[in-house]
Amino acid sequence: MRRVGLITDFGTRDPYVGAMKGVIASRTEAPIVDCTHEIAPFDVWEAAFYIRAMARWWPDGTIFTVVVDPGVGTPRRIVAVDSAGQIFLAPDNGVLTFVIGIAHSVENESLFLPDGSTTFHGRDRFAPVAAALANGLSIEQLGPRADDLVRLDYTAPAYDRRRVDGTIVAIDRFGNLITDIERSHIPFAAFALQAPSIARVSTTYSGEGPFLIIGSTGCVEISIAAASAATALKLKRGDRVTVVPA
Amino acid sequence: MRRVGLITDFGTRDPYVGAMKGVIASRTEAPIVDCTHEIAPFDVWEAAFYIRAMARWWPDGTIFTVVVDPGVGTPRRIVAVDSAGQIFLAPDNGVLTFVIGIAHSVENESLFLPDGSTTFHGRDRFAPVAAALANGLSIEQLGPRADDLVRLDYTAPAYDRRRVDGTIVAIDRFGNLITDIERSHIPFAAFALQAPSIARVSTTYSGEGPFLIIGSTGCVEISIAAASAATALKLKRGDRVTVVPA
Amino acid sequence: MRRVGLITDFGTRDPYVGAMKGVIASRTEAPIVDCTHEIAPFDVWEAAFYIRAMARWWPDGTIFTVVVDPGVGTPRRIVAVDSAGQIFLAPDNGVLTFVIGIAHSVENESLFLPDGSTTFHGRDRFAPVAAALANGLSIEQLGPRADDLVRLDYTAPAYDRRRVDGTIVAIDRFGNLITDIERSHIPFAAFALQAPSIARVSTTYSGEGPFLIIGSTGCVEISIAAASAATALKLKRGDRVTVVPA
Repeated sequence: MRRVGLITDFGTRDPYVGAMKGVIASRTEAPIVDCTHEIAPFDVWEAAFYIRAMARWWPDGTIFTVVVDPGVGTPRRIVAVDSAGQIFLAPDNGVLTFVIGIAHSVENESLFLPDGSTTFHGRDRFAPVAAALANGLSIEQLGPRADDLVRLDYTAPAYDRRRVDGTIVAIDRFGNLITDIERSHIPFAAFALQAPSIARVSTTYSGEGPFLIIGSTGCVEISIAAASAATALKLKRGDRVTVVPA
Repeated sequence: MRRVGLITDFGTRDPYVGAMKGVIASRTEAPIVDCTHEIAPFDVWEAAFYIRAMARWWPDGTIFTVVVDPGVGTPRRIVAVDSAGQIFLAPDNGVLTFVIGIAHSVENESLFLPDGSTTFHGRDRFAPVAAALANGLSIEQLGPRADDLVRLDYTAPAYDRRRVDGTIVAIDRFGNLITDIERSHIPFAAFALQAPSIARVSTTYSGEGPFLIIGSTGCVEISIAAASAATALKLKRGDRVTVVPA
Repeated sequence: MRRVGLITDFGTRDPYVGAMKGVIASRTEAPIVDCTHEIAPFDVWEAAFYIRAMARWWPDGTIFTVVVDPGVGTPRRIVAVDSAGQIFLAPDNGVLTFVIGIAHSVENESLFLPDGSTTFHGRDRFAPVAAALANGLSIEQLGPRADDLVRLDYTAPAYDRRRVDGTIVAIDRFGNLITDIERSHIPFAAFALQAPSIARVSTTYSGEGPFLIIGSTGCVEISIAAASAATALKLKRGDRVTVVPA
């Protein structure tokens, strides 16, 4: 079964998501699923890491429609990427940095709404193309192959024998600080955070003070039980952190 | 295919939306779609403009169920309006100001939940009536024709040969100030905003300082790239604005 | 028709809800319904009262999947309760205090995702079990009968001939203060609130000043028309209130 999953920074207070869903529902019976509409406005980074953590849990045939698009109306491309049977439809602005697959540039204007706006491609371009894909259109029919997709300015962690340097890539609603340091890649058995110095490693969100925990993505997280580690430790997304042997 | 689209000011933290969905799901297999639950509490104006921008993108057979209802329990009517095959079920409080169609007053109490409350018609009246409509009930069976629906206290723009006076009717989450001045109705080719004075007209959300842009509804919007024009310009909904030849 | 209803404290900004939906959609065609993701983080009490007000409106065959789980990864049980044909899947932490039925402990690890995390049972345990239940698995197959479920530290109201002592159990987005005092149990015809002293009883959200109203759950609420009673009266959840004859 094909389905359309929506990932936007629109919120739901404004009529944008409702209009997109209407265009899709007008053109396909495929289910429309809200993944999120709460990506921070214009935050391509947040959307890219959202997709990295979320998309792999979905079945083949899901058409992820990603509208986090500060460059709407500029010559930025719209691309569709087939990643092992999942399709990602998105502006080419880095939001698909962690999606590996075959990309096509969406240029087949016959699929767009006629007389569309320059400001709301979510409704006028993404929605009808997503519906067409849900109805079975192949991505080859969208336009030519696209190479050199835009990528985030992001440095992957460096795993050294005596230290691992990584980055806080997300902060969740609980205030957990999520790094990109994968536990399975750390080349030493016991580890601690260097600065701020945190030695306790827990498997549950419990106990006193800050601790490290392997989160749901398999990466090191910095956490405080029932409180926001981000607030307490004054750390923010993008901050560099170092893990050392304990 | 019929479907029920929900438009409320309930938020989703409280059990109100969940209860409404349960009543609908108990009575029909028609899909239930969240349009929005984030209309500001009691804000009939916001809901009316939300509907104006959103509903036209949906197919026939959609039953929009609008519960923004500060007068719940008072003698205000509930009405159902058939607008070219879309049905709008709403309190008669102005929220359907921009919906044109044949209206019936919802008075057939056999459709309501028995022993319903005076405080939550969303669950006790709107939900079961929406489900009945989704199952094929015609609006004639809801009650008698209704005329003179309540309308918003709203003045449409005046398009003069040398100036157009309009209103900021909405502010979206990005801080864009959305007026009701339709580009296609402005009787001069080049235009500017009079006060605050804004001469730049853009087709994309880019460049320095405030600019005018034709937004997704075809109306003039005041915007700042990647920032809130509402905050920067200290303008608010309801403020009058004037467009003049450039 | 079976369906999965989601009740979480995850919000939708983070990838948690999207990942859960993906796991469910990978394993069942049953519809997935968002009840709420806006329970306050870790707030078991709020979730318990949410469920009390919301669940009874749903049909049999609904699988409510409740992930408000501050103790994730600790030895707290996961339980499934069959309550007259509705199934509640939840951590055993008090969130099902008001659900009466036959409980089983979820211990059949073959249903869980392999190599699951200790931090995100919503995705790794709740979601695949919910999908299995939606596909027809019986709760007997989840694990042994479970007794002595954890209950909230909550005192039900005392209905005396001359006074009723109760508790403010919820505050909704409109600022209504919702007590647990059921109108139908009050043993006197006319009633008033003792402190703060409120004598006016209304059937609609209208008029000047604070008033009492029988809300959608049949309980006494304290309200102010188009304003927040919680803010104006400086009352909070857990505060005790007394109703006396008027």
